[in-house]
Amino acid sequence: MNLLNFLNNHFNTAFTSEDQLPFRSTPRSIAKGTIITDYSKIEKHIYFINSGIFQMTIQHDLEEKIIDFYFADSFVCAYTSFIRQTPSDVRITALTDCMVETIYYDEVQAAYKESLLANKLGRVLTEQIYMIKSSREKDFLIKSAEERYAELIARRPDIIKLIPGYKIAQYLGIKPESLSRIRKDLAIRITH
Amino acid sequence: MNLLNFLNNHFNTAFTSEDQLPFRSTPRSIAKGTIITDYSKIEKHIYFINSGIFQMTIQHDLEEKIIDFYFADSFVCAYTSFIRQTPSDVRITALTDCMVETIYYDEVQAAYKESLLANKLGRVLTEQIYMIKSSREKDFLIKSAEERYAELIARRPDIIKLIPGYKIAQYLGIKPESLSRIRKDLAIRITH
Repeated sequence: MNLLNFLNNHFNTAFTSEDQLPFRSTPRSIAKGTIITDYSKIEKHIYFINSGIFQMTIQHDLEEKIIDFYFADSFVCAYTSFIRQTPSDVRITALTDCMVETIYYDEVQAAYKESLLANKLGRVLTEQIYMIKSSREKDFLIKSAEERYAELIARRPDIIKLIPGYKIAQYLGIKPESLSRIRKDLAIRITH
Repeated sequence: MNLLNFLNNHFNTAFTSEDQLPFRSTPRSIAKGTIITDYSKIEKHIYFINSGIFQMTIQHDLEEKIIDFYFADSFVCAYTSFIRQTPSDVRITALTDCMVETIYYDEVQAAYKESLLANKLGRVLTEQIYMIKSSREKDFLIKSAEERYAELIARRPDIIKLIPGYKIAQYLGIKPESLSRIRKDLAIRITH
């Protein structure tokens, strides 16, 4: 899906041309393996994903963990860095060849000054990702790795299907061996 | 601080009267121990805290964990429930006698329809709490309970000073015994 259709679907708008959007977007193809935002860089873009998969990672004590995977028809951005214009503590990498529409920081800020629509879009999209973060915070606080994995199977089968196991372990914040054990335990529970 | 001054400080506005705000707010005093939003209720308010402390909790398998503590000059709200108007999975309780200014869901939604300022306020405040949630998600993903406790001491001394230990353990997502051990280890490291 392109950005125009996405916005029309989610905001009851009736855009027929890119020119009607409060900020320009530029199509770009990104090769598998490309880092579009790196550690310590300042995020200058929001990407709307037309096709492909990205991952967002964070490093600590030389270990890398995965914050999330991003699929078609959603946005990806080092958003804290984007909001504050401070160095990013995350890296965004294309896991497949991807097509995106790029939105530029300066244009978003200019639109935010005067445009009711831009602020509505920004508010509602920020509410959406707030709810995702809030839900993950709750999961980390109250749920075991087993429960979080079982929910991933139920709620985000795209991740289970398309992402290799060692990356799913990095996403759950556990060691690959722990994920293997969880998978075995779940399989036993399902077959018995 | 009252809401008017808070907004003037954070948004370069120059409100001189409540009537200029895009939504009304109503002062209310809340007694220590009062539950202002309960599990399964639909959140109809955002509270700006003039004085006092609130906690937000979540339940799982009969165990209660603390999502966060909220102090004066900030907002508290079961925000996912507020946005979606679905039953809340969190409870908000006054830990002390509190003074708040209450903002009503219906008025916020009405203001969001037409008001540039309301959408700017909503967007920027949602960006702020997004960043808090995102940061806590990262902490859970990459940091040990020890590291999270050490950071709490450094960054949020108000919590260490004002909140009892068993509640800090519920906030860190660990058992009170584990917090005692962490505190001892830290004390040894500091004195040696």
